[in-house]
Amino acid sequence: MIGELRELARLTGDERGAQRVAWTDTWARAREWERGLLAELPVEVEIDEAGNQWATLEGRSAMALVIGSHIDSVPNGGWLDGCLGVLSALEVLRSLSADGPPPLTMKHVDWADEEGSRFGLSLLGSTAAAGRLDPDFVRGLRDAGGVCAADALAAHGVDVDRMGDSRSRLTDVVAYVEMHIEQGPVLEARDLPLGVVTGVYGTERWAVKFTGQAAHAGSTPMDQRRDPLSAAARLALEVRELARARGGVGTVGRIESEPGIATAVAGTATALVDQRHVDAEALRDMREEAEKASRAIAEEERVEVEWSPLFRFSPIHFDADMVAAASAIVTDLQGVDARLPSGPLHDAARVAEAGVPAVMLFVRSKRGLSHAREEDTDEADLELALTALERLVRAELERRS
Amino acid sequence: MIGELRELARLTGDERGAQRVAWTDTWARAREWERGLLAELPVEVEIDEAGNQWATLEGRSAMALVIGSHIDSVPNGGWLDGCLGVLSALEVLRSLSADGPPPLTMKHVDWADEEGSRFGLSLLGSTAAAGRLDPDFVRGLRDAGGVCAADALAAHGVDVDRMGDSRSRLTDVVAYVEMHIEQGPVLEARDLPLGVVTGVYGTERWAVKFTGQAAHAGSTPMDQRRDPLSAAARLALEVRELARARGGVGTVGRIESEPGIATAVAGTATALVDQRHVDAEALRDMREEAEKASRAIAEEERVEVEWSPLFRFSPIHFDADMVAAASAIVTDLQGVDARLPSGPLHDAARVAEAGVPAVMLFVRSKRGLSHAREEDTDEADLELALTALERLVRAELERRS
Repeated sequence: MIGELRELARLTGDERGAQRVAWTDTWARAREWERGLLAELPVEVEIDEAGNQWATLEGRSAMALVIGSHIDSVPNGGWLDGCLGVLSALEVLRSLSADGPPPLTMKHVDWADEEGSRFGLSLLGSTAAAGRLDPDFVRGLRDAGGVCAADALAAHGVDVDRMGDSRSRLTDVVAYVEMHIEQGPVLEARDLPLGVVTGVYGTERWAVKFTGQAAHAGSTPMDQRRDPLSAAARLALEVRELARARGGVGTVGRIESEPGIATAVAGTATALVDQRHVDAEALRDMREEAEKASRAIAEEERVEVEWSPLFRFSPIHFDADMVAAASAIVTDLQGVDARLPSGPLHDAARVAEAGVPAVMLFVRSKRGLSHAREEDTDEADLELALTALERLVRAELERRS
Repeated sequence: MIGELRELARLTGDERGAQRVAWTDTWARAREWERGLLAELPVEVEIDEAGNQWATLEGRSAMALVIGSHIDSVPNGGWLDGCLGVLSALEVLRSLSADGPPPLTMKHVDWADEEGSRFGLSLLGSTAAAGRLDPDFVRGLRDAGGVCAADALAAHGVDVDRMGDSRSRLTDVVAYVEMHIEQGPVLEARDLPLGVVTGVYGTERWAVKFTGQAAHAGSTPMDQRRDPLSAAARLALEVRELARARGGVGTVGRIESEPGIATAVAGTATALVDQRHVDAEALRDMREEAEKASRAIAEEERVEVEWSPLFRFSPIHFDADMVAAASAIVTDLQGVDARLPSGPLHDAARVAEAGVPAVMLFVRSKRGLSHAREEDTDEADLELALTALERLVRAELERRS
């Protein structure tokens, strides 16, 4: 598996990192290479209406256990994000297929466009399979070069209007297991290689626009300003305080101002606010308090404020039995239990939303870095993670057969 | 004059405002139109090595009094910024020329590229005439389309290496008078049409870059973040407090973050800090305190901070006798004296830096707006301003002859 990860990086990356952005030639090349590996196994490979790639190893039951992740990457991505889950699942499939037909049908999935790097909509394939995709919304998307999503997807055989038909793929699925790098610093801080993901943070992502009065930075006395950038700065600090007080996380990663020059008090300033929490009620409160704070700030600063939703996702709790089973295996392997919620979204969250029992394993990320060439995990950790995944899959097959 | 201002707006503007960006065809067209007006007077018109346009009305002495401003505009500019000074000076020139040779030689100037809109360097022509231009710096400038400044200037007959020769234009100049809209709300707040400018704020403009660690907004716990955008937000508020405490003005008009997306804690955040004060010592203190604050913030936030100068300009105090003369005239016209420093820079500041006694008149701007189509001043105010300018020029001619 590690050799294959390195080979994939060589085939589809460059000196800046992985370049397997979904709906590009490089991504298609990665998949072609992946199909070459699958061809050595007694599996049937298909691509569904949403572009997700499935490899089916027939079992003694039609009920299916799905393992996989995504092979697409962000631009200049790391060598493990997504493809670790795809190639570890492939390794498990190899091991299982050597034993003859498994008790359940095994399906290996490579979800299409988890990252959303080109059109800004992440989890595209799994959202379609979960029956939650709005084709009209997808049709309106364009990439940075102005290419419309419908055309780009069509070039890879996907008809936006038929993506929802991929729902049938989850009909007979009784469980889903995904392994992924943590992409955060929690396991490293605890000095543990493996963790069991209890669920996925809910997300409230909003653009908060303050509107004041653009004015000359030299000629406008301080007491005659209506400065939206000051308001946005105050909100950014408030969002942080709310997360510190309530748990979860809160981030302002960008403040966009207009005209956005050194010599003018801004006329508008928009803060991108991202708040996440594993508890739905705490998340709701955190957002409401941020909005309330923004209104108080706006009044004090004599500016207007407007909240526009960018992305909202309810917290997901993974299947309790699967979490318990995974925890037992992880505890056995590393001597300590380690359960954590996931801050980043994953395809597993969409699968769980669709009612399929699911769980994820995390393997630690060095310095918590991801979405960057520097993304890394020790090979020993990767080997341990593969062992955990195989044990978990075999345990689930046994438990459900 | 007002009719000519309207005509100029019609000839060189569109529905978004004035479009006389220096070193463009529209700017050249404005100048051609201006030369058409000058051609009706007994003046000699020349363009100097820096692109400044001069019209000379020979007087009984070679000693010269210069009046003027700039006809270039920002993109989508107003109908008065700069061109009011050019056309009011032209009107005064008309009046004087009707009287036969004045006691001093009168020069009308239209400075090249006051706004710096295309290449980012303001006061280009007056800086050259003041002997303060670095040709190597100009040669390195490019516009947003990648065109290099040297080529654009050459297309308008200006050789970057020879711009400094325009210094000779100020040799025999004994006084400089410029009228301009205030571009700020001070006169309007005092309900006065006219003001005498005592000097120009010094400016300390710096890019303050905080460097932390880019991280996933979902997966990075609050206590493990090194968030430069929070540091920049804190500095922006601190810059404001310092200006409130010490007088002058302090602005952060932009915070630029990388990667600058909703889903990532920023890795770097750069605040553009602009501080201005009429007093050199207060300005120095204000900047030093901002830097000190930024270092304390950086330490608390566990990020690095780096200050890079963008633009530094020492406060300018206009000639005391000329300020007194102008104040007497303004007081006579509106019943109240009104003296104020200028926050924005003007060509007059460069002329004063070169040792020429100078003064400016301000006329109030509605709502303090400028660099926008909404820029406006009542016609009655413009007429009063023209009267003040003519009286001031005649008083200076009398005093100096």
